[in-house]
Amino acid sequence: MTRAFNFSAGPAALPAEVLTQAAEEMLDWHGAGMGVMEMSHRGREFMSILADAQADLRELLAVPANYRILFMQGGALAENAIIPMNLLGGARAAQRQTADYVVTGSWSVKSQKEARKYCDVNIAASTEAENFTRLPGMEEWRLSKDPAYVHICTNETIHGVEYFWTPDLATVGLADVPLVADVSSHILSRPMDVSKFGVMYGGAQKNIGPSGLTVVIVRDDLLGRALPFTPSAFDWKIVAENDSMFNTPPTYAIYIAGLVFQWLKRQGGLAAMEAQNKAKADLLYGFLDGSDFYRTPVAPDCRSRMNVPFFLRDDALNETFLAGARERGLLQLKGHKSVGGMRASIYNAMPLDGVRALVDYLREFERSHG
Amino acid sequence: MTRAFNFSAGPAALPAEVLTQAAEEMLDWHGAGMGVMEMSHRGREFMSILADAQADLRELLAVPANYRILFMQGGALAENAIIPMNLLGGARAAQRQTADYVVTGSWSVKSQKEARKYCDVNIAASTEAENFTRLPGMEEWRLSKDPAYVHICTNETIHGVEYFWTPDLATVGLADVPLVADVSSHILSRPMDVSKFGVMYGGAQKNIGPSGLTVVIVRDDLLGRALPFTPSAFDWKIVAENDSMFNTPPTYAIYIAGLVFQWLKRQGGLAAMEAQNKAKADLLYGFLDGSDFYRTPVAPDCRSRMNVPFFLRDDALNETFLAGARERGLLQLKGHKSVGGMRASIYNAMPLDGVRALVDYLREFERSHG
Repeated sequence: MTRAFNFSAGPAALPAEVLTQAAEEMLDWHGAGMGVMEMSHRGREFMSILADAQADLRELLAVPANYRILFMQGGALAENAIIPMNLLGGARAAQRQTADYVVTGSWSVKSQKEARKYCDVNIAASTEAENFTRLPGMEEWRLSKDPAYVHICTNETIHGVEYFWTPDLATVGLADVPLVADVSSHILSRPMDVSKFGVMYGGAQKNIGPSGLTVVIVRDDLLGRALPFTPSAFDWKIVAENDSMFNTPPTYAIYIAGLVFQWLKRQGGLAAMEAQNKAKADLLYGFLDGSDFYRTPVAPDCRSRMNVPFFLRDDALNETFLAGARERGLLQLKGHKSVGGMRASIYNAMPLDGVRALVDYLREFERSHG
Repeated sequence: MTRAFNFSAGPAALPAEVLTQAAEEMLDWHGAGMGVMEMSHRGREFMSILADAQADLRELLAVPANYRILFMQGGALAENAIIPMNLLGGARAAQRQTADYVVTGSWSVKSQKEARKYCDVNIAASTEAENFTRLPGMEEWRLSKDPAYVHICTNETIHGVEYFWTPDLATVGLADVPLVADVSSHILSRPMDVSKFGVMYGGAQKNIGPSGLTVVIVRDDLLGRALPFTPSAFDWKIVAENDSMFNTPPTYAIYIAGLVFQWLKRQGGLAAMEAQNKAKADLLYGFLDGSDFYRTPVAPDCRSRMNVPFFLRDDALNETFLAGARERGLLQLKGHKSVGGMRASIYNAMPLDGVRALVDYLREFERSHG
């Protein structure tokens, strides 16, 4: 068995330690006589797995007590509908029929598009004209007078732009408007101040665990604002009241996520991950910046530490580059079709050695084809 | 490691062969250098896993060509909302604002309750007054004049009643009304005539694989009837057009389901499973019927072959019974709280030896406590 370095944008590489433990426990979890996949979600064994996963995530991200952690299904794309469904009803529904979106890449484009089914959407800012290569500062945002919420995507997986600052809506007189963030592709990559957000959400398949699990972290005063036609299984209040067990949760995905949380704690938590992720990103961007053969399009102040899009000087070499990479066990480096070129996703589970191997290959490829 | 006999109603026992293969492939699938959980859903490796799973399910159930197999998320409880959302819109929306439900246990109670968010619900028949211990024949149904669909639950996991016949709406002048069936807890337990249904749906965690995967089999003329506020990720037409990849699918759950489908084919397919499941059910019901110490409440003509609720003569012995069962490696026999007593779920993955071990224990417990 050979493990490659897997640069997939998601579903993505997981720590080998986690997978090894999962394999060992597959047929018999802790002497239970059955595997995790086979357990009733209401039995004491799985209940302990769920409780540990929630507690470990709360500890890692320092989630305040007035926030609920929900384990849901459908990924960020489903949540793009579930968010307006959950925030446009309730007592203030009549006043607030507009939601503001800051559009900074493919994922926020999709979010605002889906929201239009449920409300008026105001595009507060967009960098589409610049091919999503920078982030608009708050001074550029044109917010509505009284939006139901303001939505951002704090790391654009496809375009590779990341917020290293958190918008403060109080500075523009909207202190009581919740900030909603798609954090799918950088959650747990570094500490974040959850208290600055109303809702954080993300699919697990980037930096947490398997696809099929969605993590939603919601401030508890935002529960109870759902539109009447919100499916019960996607009504945050119902999910919260049932401790993510209104419907049968994706038990195995939660178990794997829990193993990842434990692994993160063994690595030293999110401050340690941040240092490691910064070292990886600095190494890769530093090399790309020092080369005329490669080019990365994103403005330096918002370059994602998780998703690094880059281009060869000559697109005609792309297939040769990818074939050589595969030969060396450097997998899934092809860029998203909407951007082209290459993309290296270097989530928590990618070791520094993987980035070193990539940089070695970049250097060698430049030497032989430059 | 000891594998117990696991009678959980779901998530439920899986074949040891399937789990063993999954454990072996956890870190490296077929030499890909990565595990299934780590693969891009759009890469050729996972695309082949998905295509094989769909083709094997189509072959096993003999799904006709004009039906689409969708892999979705949220389970049957989410689908309870997704069904009316998908069937109450379209060209005929103005005429058809009523859906008919036949209520035969806890699951169909939940289905009709959720549907009321989206349409008028007509309860065509209900056996609630008889504690859901029998099935109402079609001659008892009071259908609407022109319902958008008629919904049944063909196996009630909690109450243990199963349809061994398929309603034919043509016989009551509703040939063009789709029959919608929650088949969660007996799909793949025997051959079924898919062509008699408009929609079959179910959570995977009973008889297919891990929780977090929903299987929807829908006749293609029913696509395109969604209400305008249906989330894109749950719009069957969008899911079908994107071959279950509009949003990132639950890749690992699909992989496990695919291994179960292969295992079913090795067992001889659904006719062989039916013979095996009939032998298991006959053994268990036969013993219960021959005893005065135990009692099973369901009418003989609709006793589920998958979920067998039963009671001890004296409820005061329940805890002693369950403790003794656990000691012998007979797990998760406690009945659902809404019914009480015991329940043995004996899905495909439960071998005949497991039912023999249960009957041996039932006999011994009766001898020592009767």
